[in-house]
Amino acid sequence: MEKESWEQLEELAAAGDPQRLEEYLMSLPPGETGLALSRLAAEDQLGVLTTLSPADAADLIEEISNVQAAGLIEALPADNAAAILDELESNHQADVLGAMSAEQAEAVISAMPAEEAAEARALIAYAPNVAGGLMSTELLEFRDAQTAHEVIEDLRRRVEQYADYQVQYAYVVSAEGRLVGVLRMHDLLLAPGERRVGEFMIAHPLSVRDDTPLTDLESFFDRHAFLGAPVVDAQDKLLGVVHRDDVEEALADRADSDYLKSQGIVGGEELRTMPTLLRSRRRLAWLSINILLNVMAASVIALFEETLQAVIALAVFLPIISDMSGCSGSQAMAVSTRELALGLVRPHELWRVWTKEISVGMINGVVLGGLIAVVGWAWKQNPYLGLVIGAAMALNTMVAVSIGGTVPLVLKGLKQDPALASGPILTTVTDMCGFFFVLGFATLALDLLKGS
Amino acid sequence: MEKESWEQLEELAAAGDPQRLEEYLMSLPPGETGLALSRLAAEDQLGVLTTLSPADAADLIEEISNVQAAGLIEALPADNAAAILDELESNHQADVLGAMSAEQAEAVISAMPAEEAAEARALIAYAPNVAGGLMSTELLEFRDAQTAHEVIEDLRRRVEQYADYQVQYAYVVSAEGRLVGVLRMHDLLLAPGERRVGEFMIAHPLSVRDDTPLTDLESFFDRHAFLGAPVVDAQDKLLGVVHRDDVEEALADRADSDYLKSQGIVGGEELRTMPTLLRSRRRLAWLSINILLNVMAASVIALFEETLQAVIALAVFLPIISDMSGCSGSQAMAVSTRELALGLVRPHELWRVWTKEISVGMINGVVLGGLIAVVGWAWKQNPYLGLVIGAAMALNTMVAVSIGGTVPLVLKGLKQDPALASGPILTTVTDMCGFFFVLGFATLALDLLKGS
Repeated sequence: MEKESWEQLEELAAAGDPQRLEEYLMSLPPGETGLALSRLAAEDQLGVLTTLSPADAADLIEEISNVQAAGLIEALPADNAAAILDELESNHQADVLGAMSAEQAEAVISAMPAEEAAEARALIAYAPNVAGGLMSTELLEFRDAQTAHEVIEDLRRRVEQYADYQVQYAYVVSAEGRLVGVLRMHDLLLAPGERRVGEFMIAHPLSVRDDTPLTDLESFFDRHAFLGAPVVDAQDKLLGVVHRDDVEEALADRADSDYLKSQGIVGGEELRTMPTLLRSRRRLAWLSINILLNVMAASVIALFEETLQAVIALAVFLPIISDMSGCSGSQAMAVSTRELALGLVRPHELWRVWTKEISVGMINGVVLGGLIAVVGWAWKQNPYLGLVIGAAMALNTMVAVSIGGTVPLVLKGLKQDPALASGPILTTVTDMCGFFFVLGFATLALDLLKGS
Repeated sequence: MEKESWEQLEELAAAGDPQRLEEYLMSLPPGETGLALSRLAAEDQLGVLTTLSPADAADLIEEISNVQAAGLIEALPADNAAAILDELESNHQADVLGAMSAEQAEAVISAMPAEEAAEARALIAYAPNVAGGLMSTELLEFRDAQTAHEVIEDLRRRVEQYADYQVQYAYVVSAEGRLVGVLRMHDLLLAPGERRVGEFMIAHPLSVRDDTPLTDLESFFDRHAFLGAPVVDAQDKLLGVVHRDDVEEALADRADSDYLKSQGIVGGEELRTMPTLLRSRRRLAWLSINILLNVMAASVIALFEETLQAVIALAVFLPIISDMSGCSGSQAMAVSTRELALGLVRPHELWRVWTKEISVGMINGVVLGGLIAVVGWAWKQNPYLGLVIGAAMALNTMVAVSIGGTVPLVLKGLKQDPALASGPILTTVTDMCGFFFVLGFATLALDLLKGS
């Protein structure tokens, strides 16, 4: 049987031949690198990284996710870590540093050359999802007073350095470093050699401020078919360039993070290679809030012990009403979250969303209530049992879509993260109402239900 | 008070002045266009689209989401719809057509000029998430036998047509139309005029087959710092180019769709501007499966009516155990889904995932079981009640993480969509086990619990 990729990797790292190790890593099929690395023991992973040259190690780091990369880099001595990070593109460097704890990031940055360290500190000082945090500082920058000929000469001279850049545009600055234009490569191509850049650049270029949030960047790139936008500070000084693909990637990351949060992974991304205790602690932080909310909701049931004692069949329907209301509410919540993300609804439009939700909730409530009523009736041969649970289900479906539809808007309006808190609020309120409806209606109709 | 954007839009559409309407639309802040359009009555939305020139209407369509765009286009007469779609970039055109029903898409395509219609049919015949479905057909294509001078002359002549293209690369084909090279704009810039493209192009370029799935495209762009990749058929014939940003966008869409599915929006994206009955029907399709599963799970409770009758307090804890196990299982499920997406785990590695999950599940089960045991003990002053529900909670947490961790792998291995079915499977199994543990343990310890 052929060896698994991580077994081969382990052997090559042990052999300590950087050349063969690099060749093997480059030969792995796409996506296999992260898998192979993750299967090595911690010391073997470090062995791989330290055997490779810093440049090759940086190539490797670029192939794996930021969380995985940060985990590896954290485990290295600060010197090695700094040497590898120094080889990464500014943008990617900031991503990996951002996925590390603040102290460990600072330890690595301190080991970098002074100038690079200052640059890295400036980049990670930005929030990750604003233009400054997403931008790359590698860009082509020319003066407006230069001629086409001079620019082409410069490009020729530094072709090696520019090879890694995304050079669809060059940016033009004034003597004071202010952004004054954008230069398209094909305009440069067509311009007579003696003309000055200032004359054939696109003047008054669109730019984004370094504190522009991700949502506005998304709209910017939706609106303009640009591959990148220059990032400037309050004085219009050119700081970097934010690329369309990095914005798209940040949007995909945000969607991933929303999904993880909605499923209860809230303390940061989890990989199964992380220590068990860390994973357990992070998950428990979320679960222990939930258990409190659950006890609160279930305490409604405790208020009706006598009714339950008299009509024990109700106990069967309590979890059904609870779970079904959760489902109906989740659907409404997902649509609101989505419409907020698409900008199709504003946080204050609660009434509009509620009227749209309640119309669906009434139809679905009647259908689901009818179904469960038939089940209750058929099981205990008591139409009143069916009526009680059916009515409770119908009413609670309306409560659930109302809560599910509006809570994300309210949280967004309060500048809270809807993905994080909507779920528990929804579940707790719909559980309490659902239990109250079933048991309250049953208490009112107790004489008709007895014996069920 | 200032008028809302949709009120102004309504008036301008009624006035029927395409010039002023276009100017107003362009003046809206990013993200406001989709909102304003969605607030108009259906006939006013059509009024806006038909008042604008097809090119301006196409610009408008590009600013809103595909579902919203498809909804608008579907409502137009086929002629108008075809004229507008004809103005869209091939890639975007396929997205909008793909979001329409097959019949309506065909109706619009039939109204397009024959050549464009054939192209559109070819593009939408691809699955949306393969290279062929994501590619654009607008690209710069030259013959290997052309000289640098000829290429530059061609660029100069067709500068208008190329203005909308993403022209970071040009592609070079042989006389038979086979892809033989890639031409970088700055190489063209630096090449002597009389040299042939074949001599300074990058030969043996990387390309992707038209049937390459999204996951492999993601790996491709992770591995290679390209902004686009040429798409070829089995005979190496150049078909189009897939841009990095379109791959990133498709990934973001997939994450959105996974999130929606995990929350029970499974029949396609829902906007609140859609008809109530359609929204209701789609949501019910999902809910009615769930109610069946719920009745199945709850029927376990019905088997233990006597135990419940004797220890009515247990009824309070059944929904708690059910909901908490759901939470623990969702966390494990989210981590598996994420690791599958990152390629850090393979579908057959069930044992590996299970051992990683069960270690976290044992710790969390003991902690949560301990917490709920204290609640039960304190409430009814009966340590055995605490013991029964605590043990059930601990055991069921382990069941939940085992199911949650492995089910996405199994579904993926069976080529099913994990986002769709994992949730219901998890909830049903953990509910059944949870109810069985609580009531089963209680039945065994019945004499110790009586009176609680």
